[in-house]
Amino acid sequence: MTHRFDHISFLSDYGTRDEFVGIVKCVVADIAPHVNVIDITHDIPAFDVRAGSLALARAVSYVPKGVVLAVVDPGVGTSRRAIAVSVSGGDGVFIGPDNGLLAMGVALAGGAEFAVELTNTKYHLPSPGTTFAGRDIFGSVAAHICNGVELSELGNEIDTASLLPGIIPITRDENGQLVGEVTWVDHFGNCQLNIGPEEIAQWGSPVRVSIGNADSPNHVVRSVPIVNNFSQIGGGLGLVIDSFGMLALCTDRGSAAAELDLGPTNMVTISQDPNAGGGVSTTVRLGSKPN
Amino acid sequence: MTHRFDHISFLSDYGTRDEFVGIVKCVVADIAPHVNVIDITHDIPAFDVRAGSLALARAVSYVPKGVVLAVVDPGVGTSRRAIAVSVSGGDGVFIGPDNGLLAMGVALAGGAEFAVELTNTKYHLPSPGTTFAGRDIFGSVAAHICNGVELSELGNEIDTASLLPGIIPITRDENGQLVGEVTWVDHFGNCQLNIGPEEIAQWGSPVRVSIGNADSPNHVVRSVPIVNNFSQIGGGLGLVIDSFGMLALCTDRGSAAAELDLGPTNMVTISQDPNAGGGVSTTVRLGSKPN
Amino acid sequence: MTHRFDHISFLSDYGTRDEFVGIVKCVVADIAPHVNVIDITHDIPAFDVRAGSLALARAVSYVPKGVVLAVVDPGVGTSRRAIAVSVSGGDGVFIGPDNGLLAMGVALAGGAEFAVELTNTKYHLPSPGTTFAGRDIFGSVAAHICNGVELSELGNEIDTASLLPGIIPITRDENGQLVGEVTWVDHFGNCQLNIGPEEIAQWGSPVRVSIGNADSPNHVVRSVPIVNNFSQIGGGLGLVIDSFGMLALCTDRGSAAAELDLGPTNMVTISQDPNAGGGVSTTVRLGSKPN
Repeated sequence: MTHRFDHISFLSDYGTRDEFVGIVKCVVADIAPHVNVIDITHDIPAFDVRAGSLALARAVSYVPKGVVLAVVDPGVGTSRRAIAVSVSGGDGVFIGPDNGLLAMGVALAGGAEFAVELTNTKYHLPSPGTTFAGRDIFGSVAAHICNGVELSELGNEIDTASLLPGIIPITRDENGQLVGEVTWVDHFGNCQLNIGPEEIAQWGSPVRVSIGNADSPNHVVRSVPIVNNFSQIGGGLGLVIDSFGMLALCTDRGSAAAELDLGPTNMVTISQDPNAGGGVSTTVRLGSKPN
Repeated sequence: MTHRFDHISFLSDYGTRDEFVGIVKCVVADIAPHVNVIDITHDIPAFDVRAGSLALARAVSYVPKGVVLAVVDPGVGTSRRAIAVSVSGGDGVFIGPDNGLLAMGVALAGGAEFAVELTNTKYHLPSPGTTFAGRDIFGSVAAHICNGVELSELGNEIDTASLLPGIIPITRDENGQLVGEVTWVDHFGNCQLNIGPEEIAQWGSPVRVSIGNADSPNHVVRSVPIVNNFSQIGGGLGLVIDSFGMLALCTDRGSAAAELDLGPTNMVTISQDPNAGGGVSTTVRLGSKPN
Repeated sequence: MTHRFDHISFLSDYGTRDEFVGIVKCVVADIAPHVNVIDITHDIPAFDVRAGSLALARAVSYVPKGVVLAVVDPGVGTSRRAIAVSVSGGDGVFIGPDNGLLAMGVALAGGAEFAVELTNTKYHLPSPGTTFAGRDIFGSVAAHICNGVELSELGNEIDTASLLPGIIPITRDENGQLVGEVTWVDHFGNCQLNIGPEEIAQWGSPVRVSIGNADSPNHVVRSVPIVNNFSQIGGGLGLVIDSFGMLALCTDRGSAAAELDLGPTNMVTISQDPNAGGGVSTTVRLGSKPN
């Protein structure tokens, strides 16, 4: 059964200062003129596979039917595999380097069903160098897939169990406290944690938030309310249930990251606030997960 | 009468570092695959409703028939209304928060003809949080409107007179001097004023430009020519009749904002230059307004 | 024979902070709704015609059939000519200012076959000012060309030999050393040179790289290997055969530009490394040029 696609959702660390993204779109337009390329973002920090995989995970339940093209590829030109991975009965195909970047996105889309290594150079562009696989391999292959080329044409099938797994930051319990980390600091300075509201629901609101090691001069401990939007924070800090259902350290109309000097992978510990009732009812209603 | 649209013109303060804009486009592509989303800009300073409304006003006479989607929304998730406003006999629909952001754009498009509050959740996305209305409400509704859904389906009609007005910076006369302000500093450092060339035509060229309070150490007074393009400035400063028909403080191939340390809302006073003839003829021809 | 086009490939120094690019796209969508505008990049440094022409040259062999719209235009509103140049039997049309910006791109596309000055205001927008030719002239004309308007309709034919040439940075031999310069520093900090691998093949690998004048305190001399990808560099510096077939000074997962304080137009001298064998075989295979 042949799939033709109209959309390529594209994420990279190429930035937009240079013509990298534009050239990939030119390549797509030349091969598959009907395709709409949607920029998820191109401002993943250079070489940061972890940040790219988290951004892809946040976006993946919203991408339309078609190809997801993701390129954060510090090993470009080496023996790391270039891959295409089919999901959801063929309604989606992920294309990128096999370095863990695609893993969380593929898992959230239902898991890998079929995978190939992109070894068939018939679907690549000839190139004077090996350092721009987004142009010469990934972009070109993505366009051919949109034209209906079968994955099995693109290279040798590989075992989906052999795909490099992603790094999923998990929380841990430490003496009754929940130790997590910042997964993402957005443009507004909101600091998303790898902690969901259900994990701390038993402590009610506010909770005690501790940032950094207890013996560090930058150690901060605050009593922080759990709220549904930025305005409910008032002054100071709040733990907002964000648009992905996770807790985020925020201020109202300001940057929590700047105020707390917080960045991705920084440790954040949450515990019961001794001055708040455990298990008390709050005004917070936990939203349902999206379809 | 049903309108189907092919274009959504999209302005926000989301930045492009994160995947916010990309996810909104994914939502649109999923609901209305035929739609072309045009980015007006996403680099409105965070939470700056005034700057967003001015950028929208500058763009609005050029947007194609269809939906204008504008999101600068510090009150997201609170009781501020989410609205859709119809203009020009239904040829255009503005969507965004009712916080003044849309007001100037709507006025320049001929004024609000019909407005609804976006209360019908049938056209929203289910969401784990309330902080990303651009994805869950505005983007989703914009796509449905492009598919032909009537505004009256999207929620309760509201009185167009109840829409929050915008802030229009106006000039004032002070002892025969015209006191205005910087409305916009562009990427090149040009400083647009809220002063049109016709307001100072009686003083000829050059005019006297005074920046900052007279008792401030940063007070600057200059004799500045009124010109039609950057090259005519030569060295120093010029008042260029810009592409929107307003006066802008500029230098040739340099940043007037950096040279004068000027930013939006800073005060600029213009008066007759004692060394220039009042009402003398100049080489400046005032261009006609665009259609 | 009438050409209709579906693609406009667009490069400028407008940045994306303001609505300049968005307004040009609105103008195109209004006149030629079927057209897909591809952003090559809009972050050419302000007024930097040289940088714009080099970016265009790197992109041009990948742009799809249609219009190439390029605007880096410090002389906007003056007597510099606005032009359209036809290449490849009419399969491509370059539009922009006649200031050298288009020259290398046109040459790489096979050379100018027909050119007009855009003097027919029927295909321009009326405007209150002369400083936004991207909106009022170039964007509007690009859209009309996509609709099938003939170049000869747009203005008077001009002699293609009269078009302003571009600046092509060339290398020179100096006492047996090859003196070149940095043409481009990309987002990752890789420094592309105007030196191809074939020019230094006789010296094998590594070669001696000298940066800055010998009498400058910032003078740096290094022995640098020639490699095919970033991982082969290991620690230190490498000369990577980049994706355009040129040599680029790079580090693995780091910024060579930051490490060496290098920028565009800085001088780089390459010579035989006395500790390496001249003409020895290396592991580097020079890739073939793309079609």
